[in-house]
Amino acid sequence: MNACILSIGDELISGLTTNTNSSWLSLQLTALGIPTVSHVTVGDQLQPIINAIRHALETCDLLLISGGLGPTEDDLTRQALADALSEQLVEDPDAVLQIEHWFKSNNRVMSPSNRVQAMRPSSASVIENTAGTAPGLHTRKGHVDIFVMPGVPTEMKQMFTRSILPELRPHAGNTITQVTKINTFGMGESILGDKIKDLMARREGPANPSVGTTVHEGIVSVRIYATGAPDEAAAMTDRIRKLVTDRLGPLIYGENDETIELAVGTLLKVRRFTVATAESCTGGLLAKMLTDTPGSSAYFLRGWVTYANAAKRDELYVREELIAAHGAVSEPVALAMADGARKEAETDFALSITGIAGPDGGTPEKPVGTVWIGLATAAGATARRFNFPGDRRAIRQRAAQMALSLLRWHILGVTPLV
Amino acid sequence: MNACILSIGDELISGLTTNTNSSWLSLQLTALGIPTVSHVTVGDQLQPIINAIRHALETCDLLLISGGLGPTEDDLTRQALADALSEQLVEDPDAVLQIEHWFKSNNRVMSPSNRVQAMRPSSASVIENTAGTAPGLHTRKGHVDIFVMPGVPTEMKQMFTRSILPELRPHAGNTITQVTKINTFGMGESILGDKIKDLMARREGPANPSVGTTVHEGIVSVRIYATGAPDEAAAMTDRIRKLVTDRLGPLIYGENDETIELAVGTLLKVRRFTVATAESCTGGLLAKMLTDTPGSSAYFLRGWVTYANAAKRDELYVREELIAAHGAVSEPVALAMADGARKEAETDFALSITGIAGPDGGTPEKPVGTVWIGLATAAGATARRFNFPGDRRAIRQRAAQMALSLLRWHILGVTPLV
Repeated sequence: MNACILSIGDELISGLTTNTNSSWLSLQLTALGIPTVSHVTVGDQLQPIINAIRHALETCDLLLISGGLGPTEDDLTRQALADALSEQLVEDPDAVLQIEHWFKSNNRVMSPSNRVQAMRPSSASVIENTAGTAPGLHTRKGHVDIFVMPGVPTEMKQMFTRSILPELRPHAGNTITQVTKINTFGMGESILGDKIKDLMARREGPANPSVGTTVHEGIVSVRIYATGAPDEAAAMTDRIRKLVTDRLGPLIYGENDETIELAVGTLLKVRRFTVATAESCTGGLLAKMLTDTPGSSAYFLRGWVTYANAAKRDELYVREELIAAHGAVSEPVALAMADGARKEAETDFALSITGIAGPDGGTPEKPVGTVWIGLATAAGATARRFNFPGDRRAIRQRAAQMALSLLRWHILGVTPLV
Repeated sequence: MNACILSIGDELISGLTTNTNSSWLSLQLTALGIPTVSHVTVGDQLQPIINAIRHALETCDLLLISGGLGPTEDDLTRQALADALSEQLVEDPDAVLQIEHWFKSNNRVMSPSNRVQAMRPSSASVIENTAGTAPGLHTRKGHVDIFVMPGVPTEMKQMFTRSILPELRPHAGNTITQVTKINTFGMGESILGDKIKDLMARREGPANPSVGTTVHEGIVSVRIYATGAPDEAAAMTDRIRKLVTDRLGPLIYGENDETIELAVGTLLKVRRFTVATAESCTGGLLAKMLTDTPGSSAYFLRGWVTYANAAKRDELYVREELIAAHGAVSEPVALAMADGARKEAETDFALSITGIAGPDGGTPEKPVGTVWIGLATAAGATARRFNFPGDRRAIRQRAAQMALSLLRWHILGVTPLV
């Protein structure tokens, strides 16, 4: 089975929005052992969509389409599919009910134009959209299976995983590619790469298993691709995972979609610890990350965003003389914030962050990127200075990730940073 | 002039790497007034690349190709282009010198395989690569201009900007496409679409100016594409902007990259107002958004994440009887949180959010997505109940966006929600 992926939208073709649907879908297919032969993107115009569908029907056995299923005038995928298949559009009574149900259960008023979303080519069946109003479509033309999904990534992913993946599984090949991402935080990509250099070498064509590194938002991930029968691919992955784990140890916090906040949350939950946060430059980001995970109320009790100095004094008992003598971005203030938060919240731990996220406010002694992170425990508080690179967003992100990592390493009793 | 953009690479087609080249290139072309009609991506195999080139030659006047110019066995773009044009590959002496020069000036050893990168179809000229080893290619077939660039984004962008853009400018002529995104929050896409339905109609080919809507993270944007001489495009855009503004009014908070948090921050700054936040289910997200903008310390003073009920009592003076009688997710608690925060922070305004972000914790009376948002002002506090759709992440995001919007509308003295 070979797949073509067709994306539809003016916002894609004009460059206003980057197409992430195609690569996500291909990655799902790669894992199933179904190769993708092409990604095609066209704008919101009837004839180009029809041409693209007809061309795909000649070149592959599986056509996945996303986009153009909205309720507005420029959503033409339903019409284009019907035209490409030489069929009429008919209203699907079940789809009308599904859309009405979605609006009702989300307490929204259904616009008359949403009714157009219940139209389908006569041969097609509709696929329920559990995350939005646009139902998907499924039909066949000759030997080609055609699935149409909404363009909104969250709706597309939910529909693919829930309703389309189960249909494709029987077609999966005997040879799959197992893709594994081992996520680390705390070491730069090049130094980390040196530690697993031998695993990444690929002189004579593509290696199997193949190992590489990627960086995204401060997270350095080791990617493993292992191709073979499912058990072979799993065995190859396990062998590489063990080597990588031996070399990178506590820098590794999780795999694939796992985040640092999930790793820390799980650790706090299992060990029955509680935590509070006291933030200045990160402005609530650390608390937000700790509460991203469902069930975080088991370990996260309260947090402060003491942006103004008066707030540090009123809420966390940071003495004004301390701020006057050392500045708000200083070790004593980071220590006092963590101590004050832990005392007031009556938690096992408290994390504090005070720094200069920029772009303004830097000085020669404390340039933009200077961040003090404090950790208060029953044994007292410690603080550490960091100099994070990048812009305001990156500095805030790194600071929060580092605070979470310091807590994780403290609980695990390891000190991977030099 | 119409453009086709062709990307080549197994890493793209397998989904391991997201294709960002196509959207970047299209955005450059859109600004020049050269519309893109398709993005196509194929893997590192000769015949599919040849087919894609031949297909593009039939459908557009400008073909931009990126990828497959490396020195290894799986880099086949040079060969495929020669085959598609029915030409031979010849070695370009200037290209050999350029590659040798690049290695020398980067203090690297040139591998014999890099010499293959100096090959070009006989009709083509080479384009110097100032950021890497792979020279680009330029040729013509009939009326179609063909440019080939490396796949590495930094190399591609540098080559496009330095060597290809100047070649395209004369073709752009006086006609440009001005792209404008008008961002709204507070109304669903379909109801909003109904209000500007007449502006979006386009059954008979592309409209100019063309108007459409997109949704991203709860933000519904009206996109305007206006094609013409620069002053015509600006005039068309202004006309549509005025119509859209008349109909959508205060739902509009900004254009292009502007966020709600920036709009609210600017408003607070200009009017010299200050704000504090009291969050439960959003866990710090609202404070984080308010402090995303540089200079936010002018208006954001402090915030609380009162996740546990004891925190609401200790920090914000929410009486325990109130929580016992109505639950933490209730109007009285939202009002008390906002009042407590405003009093304690001594700000002009305080926003409070208490809700059920899920996936657990919902009840028949208060299902997942139920959120109370409070706003305290000098005149007292008000609160409003919402039922946000989607998963935990979406509910938290919508709640924070709505809190910011309620504050914005309050300051502006408007009430766009029914």
